[in-house]
Amino acid sequence: MIQERIESTFMTSSDDPQVVWHEHSVDRASRERLMGHRGGVVWFTGLSGSGKSTVANAVESLLHIQRVHTMLLDGDNIRHGLCAGTNLLAAEHGQVFAQRFGLGFGPLDREENIRRVGAMTQLFASAGMIVLTAFVSPYRIDRQRVRQWVESQGQPGDFVEVFVDTPLAVCEQRDPKGLYQQARAGKIANFTGISDPYEPPEHPEIHLSAYDKNPRELAEDVVAWLKAHQRIA
Amino acid sequence: MIQERIESTFMTSSDDPQVVWHEHSVDRASRERLMGHRGGVVWFTGLSGSGKSTVANAVESLLHIQRVHTMLLDGDNIRHGLCAGTNLLAAEHGQVFAQRFGLGFGPLDREENIRRVGAMTQLFASAGMIVLTAFVSPYRIDRQRVRQWVESQGQPGDFVEVFVDTPLAVCEQRDPKGLYQQARAGKIANFTGISDPYEPPEHPEIHLSAYDKNPRELAEDVVAWLKAHQRIA
Repeated sequence: MIQERIESTFMTSSDDPQVVWHEHSVDRASRERLMGHRGGVVWFTGLSGSGKSTVANAVESLLHIQRVHTMLLDGDNIRHGLCAGTNLLAAEHGQVFAQRFGLGFGPLDREENIRRVGAMTQLFASAGMIVLTAFVSPYRIDRQRVRQWVESQGQPGDFVEVFVDTPLAVCEQRDPKGLYQQARAGKIANFTGISDPYEPPEHPEIHLSAYDKNPRELAEDVVAWLKAHQRIA
Repeated sequence: MIQERIESTFMTSSDDPQVVWHEHSVDRASRERLMGHRGGVVWFTGLSGSGKSTVANAVESLLHIQRVHTMLLDGDNIRHGLCAGTNLLAAEHGQVFAQRFGLGFGPLDREENIRRVGAMTQLFASAGMIVLTAFVSPYRIDRQRVRQWVESQGQPGDFVEVFVDTPLAVCEQRDPKGLYQQARAGKIANFTGISDPYEPPEHPEIHLSAYDKNPRELAEDVVAWLKAHQRIA
């Protein structure tokens, strides 16, 4: 008797009203309606010190006051969690685990870092959010793969690439974290622009030249683009 | 001159109005205000076939009609992306990459699978969403680590563990995907409940016995708990 009741609650016969109710699962379109806007990915790429995080933060602030639901992903909230390095993982999970899954900055590690972040951005977009990312993401093919994944799970236009095009010399002069100095001194390996290549986007949706505008003005350009392309109202 | 302007837009002196504006970055509390509710994680755990996905889907439907912003993570949207296996990765990224980063179902793979999902749920909670997960997540320490990570980045109560406590015999009789049959025949290794252990939660926030209620009733119990504990209004 009990067994029969269990089975009846999980039966898949189409004349069971329970099943009809289940078929109304919450999909992306439903989530977007509740959010009041479509989900999508705004992917900032550029050298260390180019201003990616600064501009992405400014864009998020502008979107937020317009009641757009946003999330910002960058090294701060990714490299301690989803893409933690060997040392961090070893403390919690042991050496064997950390050696296998910890991410550094070698070519394969960067590829996997961007792959994981990209997979996650697709889920944020499916949740109906506008997710902004601020990673150097130096390799063209890695960014291209993220675009393909995001758009194949959604639709063309869901991935907006923003190239923060600040010359290396300017980034190196700013050097806000002192990383270029360390890289020049050979204390940091695989440093983009110094000992590792940066492949600029060929056809970014948005190309920012940080020469003649301040971060807020650049952010306003991004928001204007998103409005002009109906990503937000 | 141009150089001076660039520097001035990124200077950190506190008497620069630009900087004051930047300091208003969008934080979790701001996102939660816009969402209309706090973010959090509702983590379903239980054997394959226990009803995790069914109940989680039902909870999401109930929350959605109450205008709660939700996202549901399960094997379907994780094992193809964030936690893809070796074969999937090899097609896109090549064998060397896939061998290093692809996830299977061995103990370390399960540990990393849950670690990645857990890190991501924390970010969804920080975005102000209620994220529901439906993974077997058989190991107690893995679930405990996710709880600690989520709550250390937020506050106690952000992680709600839901034990879908359906006996193995019932799950095996249902066998909705035919997996138990394959596991018994030795065609699937590391199958939880058959050739791999399941460690039930010792103190789950919510303990569902799928004996005497249907999925919708169980989902209503979960929603009632979330209301009683002020996770939603």
